[in-house]
Amino acid sequence: MNFDLLSRFHGVIPAGGVGTRLWPLSRASAPKFLHDLTGSGSTLIRATYDRLVPLAGERIMVVTGRAHRGAVVSQLPEICHEDLVLEPEPRDSAAAIGLAAAILYRRDPNVIMGSFAADQVIEPVEVFQATLREAIYTAATGKIVTLGIHPTQPSSGFGYIQSGEPLQIPNAPTARSVIQFVEKPDEDTARKYLATGGFLWNAGMFVAPVGLLLKHLEINEPELYDGLMKIADAWDTEQRDTVLGEVWPGLPKIAIDYAVAEPAAQAGDVAVVPGIFNWDDVGDFAAIGRLNKGSAEQGIINLGGEAVRVYADNATGVVYSDRPRVVALVGIEDVVVVDTADALLVTTKEHAQKVKQTVEALKADGEHEVL
Amino acid sequence: MNFDLLSRFHGVIPAGGVGTRLWPLSRASAPKFLHDLTGSGSTLIRATYDRLVPLAGERIMVVTGRAHRGAVVSQLPEICHEDLVLEPEPRDSAAAIGLAAAILYRRDPNVIMGSFAADQVIEPVEVFQATLREAIYTAATGKIVTLGIHPTQPSSGFGYIQSGEPLQIPNAPTARSVIQFVEKPDEDTARKYLATGGFLWNAGMFVAPVGLLLKHLEINEPELYDGLMKIADAWDTEQRDTVLGEVWPGLPKIAIDYAVAEPAAQAGDVAVVPGIFNWDDVGDFAAIGRLNKGSAEQGIINLGGEAVRVYADNATGVVYSDRPRVVALVGIEDVVVVDTADALLVTTKEHAQKVKQTVEALKADGEHEVL
Repeated sequence: MNFDLLSRFHGVIPAGGVGTRLWPLSRASAPKFLHDLTGSGSTLIRATYDRLVPLAGERIMVVTGRAHRGAVVSQLPEICHEDLVLEPEPRDSAAAIGLAAAILYRRDPNVIMGSFAADQVIEPVEVFQATLREAIYTAATGKIVTLGIHPTQPSSGFGYIQSGEPLQIPNAPTARSVIQFVEKPDEDTARKYLATGGFLWNAGMFVAPVGLLLKHLEINEPELYDGLMKIADAWDTEQRDTVLGEVWPGLPKIAIDYAVAEPAAQAGDVAVVPGIFNWDDVGDFAAIGRLNKGSAEQGIINLGGEAVRVYADNATGVVYSDRPRVVALVGIEDVVVVDTADALLVTTKEHAQKVKQTVEALKADGEHEVL
Repeated sequence: MNFDLLSRFHGVIPAGGVGTRLWPLSRASAPKFLHDLTGSGSTLIRATYDRLVPLAGERIMVVTGRAHRGAVVSQLPEICHEDLVLEPEPRDSAAAIGLAAAILYRRDPNVIMGSFAADQVIEPVEVFQATLREAIYTAATGKIVTLGIHPTQPSSGFGYIQSGEPLQIPNAPTARSVIQFVEKPDEDTARKYLATGGFLWNAGMFVAPVGLLLKHLEINEPELYDGLMKIADAWDTEQRDTVLGEVWPGLPKIAIDYAVAEPAAQAGDVAVVPGIFNWDDVGDFAAIGRLNKGSAEQGIINLGGEAVRVYADNATGVVYSDRPRVVALVGIEDVVVVDTADALLVTTKEHAQKVKQTVEALKADGEHEVL
């Protein structure tokens, strides 16, 4: 039975999101998930895929923008045509993940899917996989199961999941009920959450029977549900592109949290499995500094490889360059230098979050080519 | 007589010195004097030449390295072959300036020469020219005349000239005797100099009868003198290159200050004319910031021209890039970003002097191609 249950599991990797705070390294044409930001030798999407293989085998679907088809296939050469869902344009996460659920449901209504963003860093993978295994067992009891991250600081940058009682599920000893999802709090509230206990970061990772996910989508977003089912009906036929082209552009734009997770939690259909693995969404260059600390030489993290020769005199920080060259840093602490063919960013780790505003200013100025 | 006297004046422009503290903008293949560092539209050597024309006409000689021949001719298309002295290799300032003096002396022993480095910024030019005129009248009385700069701060970066009594020379009312040259002092000593008064910065600018200059060179550096006269004898003949190639590499390396100025001052042969013009040797990127203050937009000085689009969010400083691109600066005050094809420097104005050490480190590491 265990074997049967795990064989129902399919991984889904939504690969969207430009990673604006990592501009100009990450940009529309080469978003975050296509980069190796941890020095592991793997891009984030490749690492995400590899993390799922021990549980999902080749049953992994990727949902991404049409423009990234070539890059994704070159990262994941084993992915088959039917499991690569190319969005004609972005319609937010409920459409992306919902379409994957609908296609999988049409193929087999017993599928349990797990959705994991392509641009997160998780380790050790074995701990993640043990957590995921518990989540699959929990989902099989008829739950949408979020993987909650143990907060390491009172962050105001993430939503939280308030966990309730243990669910006493065989093979899922740590699964608990969910009392509520809470939106990004202010820092004081976040501090109270940590003091109270039982609050976990919502990293958007969840495991669910596709039928249950679609049931909540139908209740809360019937128009979106109808459109997705129409596309799913055509998916494994010659009509795929025609129907996708007709229906997709009219789909409502809404995040999966609002369309499914929060209403399902209110209905008592959501559980949580706390993950004690290290998790990072690589939100900005300060995160890149953190994640590459091990490879720092005299306080300098060189993401550009050997051809980039960094000389630091009383300087520390993160350097990326896409060309062979000398980069000299003199007298700046925690500097961030990102050098690409058409754009150069110089900032400090402290200001890493503000890169987003710069990208907005560039957009407002019509500098689309460098974004 | 005044006309005759001024017609004896020849300008000499030693154009050497890489300007290490301005790396990677200024480098062996494109030294400081070949750049427009003030946003004036002229390179420093072109501006130096133009400053001398009202007094020297076309009687201006340039001494530079062989490698810079093409660049100098393109900057100074009016210069004739006989007045472009190309050093086979650098032998310090006494050889460079002494050779110019020797060549001019062989052509006409009555020449009064004025030597002005190619990489200094002076304004207003009219004040400089009035000072220079006084210096020429003073030199004609048989003096080596330095142009002393009114110190604007107790700098420990320059040598000083201690001036003495007024010399009462017609047409040179401000000329004074020189008590001594003093080497770069520490800051406390420099402060005392300013409090005492009569101390001027030695900017290496001087005017002298070529015969008097050569007389002191002969006394103090007879070997150098002999070699230079040998080259000068051959200069305006077909033997020029042969003799230059034979003699030049063996010449003693010594600065003109030690070979001529200081011993001449002890002999009572040196005068000074104080200059009240603004003077800057553009020693580092902080100086570039100072000199371009007028062109700053919201605290950013863009030396890269229009193709370089600078976006600053809570940032100020100096940006140079030799390519069209976006440069985004976020949250750094007084930053200096210098972006060339093979080298990128990021520092702050405060650390601008330390760029020299970085260049030394690069040299020690064999990074000659980027220097």
